[in-house]
Amino acid sequence: MERKVLIIDCADAPGLITKITAACFEHGLNIIKNSEFVDNAQGRFFMRTELEGVFDSANLLAQLQRVLPAINHTKLVDVGKKRIVVMVTKEAHCIGDLLLKSYSGALDAEIVAVVGNYDLLAPLTDKFDVPFHFISHQDMNRVEHEQAMLAVINSYTPDYIVLAKFMRVLTPEFVSQYPNRIINIHHSFLPAFIGASPYRQAWERGVKIIGATAHFVTNSLDEGPIIKQDVIPVDHSYSVEALSKCGRDVERSVLSKALQLVINEDVVVYGNKTVVF
Amino acid sequence: MERKVLIIDCADAPGLITKITAACFEHGLNIIKNSEFVDNAQGRFFMRTELEGVFDSANLLAQLQRVLPAINHTKLVDVGKKRIVVMVTKEAHCIGDLLLKSYSGALDAEIVAVVGNYDLLAPLTDKFDVPFHFISHQDMNRVEHEQAMLAVINSYTPDYIVLAKFMRVLTPEFVSQYPNRIINIHHSFLPAFIGASPYRQAWERGVKIIGATAHFVTNSLDEGPIIKQDVIPVDHSYSVEALSKCGRDVERSVLSKALQLVINEDVVVYGNKTVVF
Amino acid sequence: MERKVLIIDCADAPGLITKITAACFEHGLNIIKNSEFVDNAQGRFFMRTELEGVFDSANLLAQLQRVLPAINHTKLVDVGKKRIVVMVTKEAHCIGDLLLKSYSGALDAEIVAVVGNYDLLAPLTDKFDVPFHFISHQDMNRVEHEQAMLAVINSYTPDYIVLAKFMRVLTPEFVSQYPNRIINIHHSFLPAFIGASPYRQAWERGVKIIGATAHFVTNSLDEGPIIKQDVIPVDHSYSVEALSKCGRDVERSVLSKALQLVINEDVVVYGNKTVVF
Amino acid sequence: MERKVLIIDCADAPGLITKITAACFEHGLNIIKNSEFVDNAQGRFFMRTELEGVFDSANLLAQLQRVLPAINHTKLVDVGKKRIVVMVTKEAHCIGDLLLKSYSGALDAEIVAVVGNYDLLAPLTDKFDVPFHFISHQDMNRVEHEQAMLAVINSYTPDYIVLAKFMRVLTPEFVSQYPNRIINIHHSFLPAFIGASPYRQAWERGVKIIGATAHFVTNSLDEGPIIKQDVIPVDHSYSVEALSKCGRDVERSVLSKALQLVINEDVVVYGNKTVVF
Repeated sequence: MERKVLIIDCADAPGLITKITAACFEHGLNIIKNSEFVDNAQGRFFMRTELEGVFDSANLLAQLQRVLPAINHTKLVDVGKKRIVVMVTKEAHCIGDLLLKSYSGALDAEIVAVVGNYDLLAPLTDKFDVPFHFISHQDMNRVEHEQAMLAVINSYTPDYIVLAKFMRVLTPEFVSQYPNRIINIHHSFLPAFIGASPYRQAWERGVKIIGATAHFVTNSLDEGPIIKQDVIPVDHSYSVEALSKCGRDVERSVLSKALQLVINEDVVVYGNKTVVF
Repeated sequence: MERKVLIIDCADAPGLITKITAACFEHGLNIIKNSEFVDNAQGRFFMRTELEGVFDSANLLAQLQRVLPAINHTKLVDVGKKRIVVMVTKEAHCIGDLLLKSYSGALDAEIVAVVGNYDLLAPLTDKFDVPFHFISHQDMNRVEHEQAMLAVINSYTPDYIVLAKFMRVLTPEFVSQYPNRIINIHHSFLPAFIGASPYRQAWERGVKIIGATAHFVTNSLDEGPIIKQDVIPVDHSYSVEALSKCGRDVERSVLSKALQLVINEDVVVYGNKTVVF
Repeated sequence: MERKVLIIDCADAPGLITKITAACFEHGLNIIKNSEFVDNAQGRFFMRTELEGVFDSANLLAQLQRVLPAINHTKLVDVGKKRIVVMVTKEAHCIGDLLLKSYSGALDAEIVAVVGNYDLLAPLTDKFDVPFHFISHQDMNRVEHEQAMLAVINSYTPDYIVLAKFMRVLTPEFVSQYPNRIINIHHSFLPAFIGASPYRQAWERGVKIIGATAHFVTNSLDEGPIIKQDVIPVDHSYSVEALSKCGRDVERSVLSKALQLVINEDVVVYGNKTVVF
Repeated sequence: MERKVLIIDCADAPGLITKITAACFEHGLNIIKNSEFVDNAQGRFFMRTELEGVFDSANLLAQLQRVLPAINHTKLVDVGKKRIVVMVTKEAHCIGDLLLKSYSGALDAEIVAVVGNYDLLAPLTDKFDVPFHFISHQDMNRVEHEQAMLAVINSYTPDYIVLAKFMRVLTPEFVSQYPNRIINIHHSFLPAFIGASPYRQAWERGVKIIGATAHFVTNSLDEGPIIKQDVIPVDHSYSVEALSKCGRDVERSVLSKALQLVINEDVVVYGNKTVVF
């Protein structure tokens, strides 16, 4: 008995649920959990089905193609630990939490490698017996640096790349190699503060909440499909440094929740948004 | 074109989703929104389907009975405003919020009457042109009092009864007339405080959060199936009265959210718990 | 025995707390509650003291001037219900909540009048026996319209003006008549959406939280000192209309909390930010 | 220049703030931050003052004794990292988080040792170069076991002991050695569930929130003064195991926040409650 997740994304049409679940039933597969969402405004259908049984995957997918609209995104993915490469710069809070949760089983992910453009986080990574690759951006142009990192990353065949406070902007060429498979975290404020020193700006403005947003990376900086957001309350007594500390707390928490959703295959991207089942 | 909600609750079995959605499809009904939940531990299947089209309801229900397990709870209910009778004692916060939200369209419910065992809330109810029935419990025994109230309540043929801080315990006879159709709100603490003056006890204990629980009324006092819970943070500087005020805020908020869920037909009761789609 | 609140805002200096509390003590006043905040980065001192006793206010303030730095903002204000004028356009959620909370005593404020540039909210206001002034902006230029509104508002000598979804931008001339005494509420998103139809933009972007910000009105549109912020979680299944409904819920809640803080004299404005004691 | 925190807890009396701050001023100490709280119902005064300067501590405390009520709790404590011994049984989530936060500087505490009645958490503790002491309760009676643990713990002269899911009840003799210096974390529910398998009971009851409470340990099991509480939302789709996972998340978060408050000297215990400045 295996377990897999079927994800379907296509134009809405009458009878889809019947046809899809009938195909699973005919293959002797048991539906453990099923969710659909129809975006009525856009006439688009999404379905996530956890299946258990003995899979003839090629056959099932072929049968589904016969009943689904011609244009559809359909995938049948294994349940289980995903392979994650984490990219970092200098900050420990997100990578530390991911390493610890992976180690203790609180996150169904294996951190297969950490890549840093500084080497500060090597000692922390070493504690968890995860290889750390220090690839400085010094003495390289952007393209060379990305290619050096990609060479290492690709060698681990990761399912997802997590930017755990990796502070460099990735080029479209890099992003295009892992479409909807690179997850970033960044701080968020109400209102937004553009430019340098956002926590100083937030402090000067006296914001009452500090937030974080985890999203897939696209070519629009910090503008990819949102996976998870959260905030924590702050007040006037918080210094710039205290606001930054709160920011780190909420970033850490939101990133690990977002990653858990992604590795559960709970997240489907469409347009510039997500369905989170 | 009408809209209805189909709710099914039965033992889990292979192919249920296929059979149910196929029946809807054959009746020419469009599935606007569909949700299922399987309690794998108990082998129980729940489904909520919003349908649009021209309904031959008797025929659809008959066809569903042919494909569902013999023992099942199945209902097809109209979408739209539900008729609500609210029972009150002396406190204004919950009834005021319900009247205002019903008036302004923020709650898809019509408050058809308010019944009070005191008359303090008659002026507030009058503002919204809703009939207020003052039925004192003085000079009546419990059974007489409940029967007097039931006579009034039944005359309004309500879909649901909301106890908006109605401070008397209802007898099993009363409750049995509206099974899973009476909604209550009460304060909740961590830890729980039994006995009189719970806010004083909470103050003496220095609790850091104050909560509220909305639930269906069963014969177990304050122990029926939970619909919605929430909390708000408090601290040592709150007096007993300030804690009570916070308690009222969270009660009001939780009760109106719970009622909205119920009138949306989002809530299914089973055992002593709920599925909230 | 009276109760008053002393608010002091000045440059930080050694011994301020001693000198201020000594002055209160010498006047035979009892300190019920005391809070200070020092913005160490800016060297600025804030103090809020609730006093009880028999007040010789002129004398107390004179004595304080002798011990405080030459430049200081010091005020001694009565505790008790503040007079509020509410300005509205078409939306009922905020004004309804304020009227209800004022009526039921949940908010220590008297709504003395409502001014609307449409007349849709007159019936709701009438229910609570509060005068509604319909002053259309049709057939008037901006200055004439504001002067017509100010004439009515000033006649009520309000302590504060609340913009409960008043959808017109106020001129600097209007704002200058009530400095730090006009409170506005607006929706907030992560990220921010500039321009028309923010809820549609938020929907297209798939935001996971919807927020609201209450702030004092200055000449920078929606950019005045923040009093209170909060958010509620949403997901992909929310339509544009459902997001708007959530926005209304959080606006209502944040506005009434912000107003309560202001009328408690818990809020001090400095620069473009607030201390909220 | 040193920094210390002055904590005072005594009967309320007129002029206390003046007298206390005057004493600090006369010693040439600068008040960085000051907070008072008066429990008016009990006539009790609390004050926490962060001081900076050159301390003649004995002299300052002697002078304070001359102006304070005869019975008072007064202490002047150093700011800086506290020494923490953590006691564990088998669960990794709390100890892992504390080790990581201590290592990365997110928590101003030094974990000087971990004591476990099982050895499962030794490998995790070893990663952070913190000594792990395995002291099995097998083959010992309760008194012997506690004395063996105390011998180890005392050798580290800890400021505080943290029970990070230590699953044995401590005797009054143990507790009396560290009054108000032992911090425990436990799950909390609305309503409370007594007896074995609380998560199963919570699941059967269909609770909608899961909480955690951090408190000082007294002789009343799980009933000591509360430091911090929080909850997270759950729903019907959570299995017993998923509820437990949420419980671990909120326990971890609440425990580290509570410990940070305690080591900041922000927490004063009185009666069975706390003031958290």
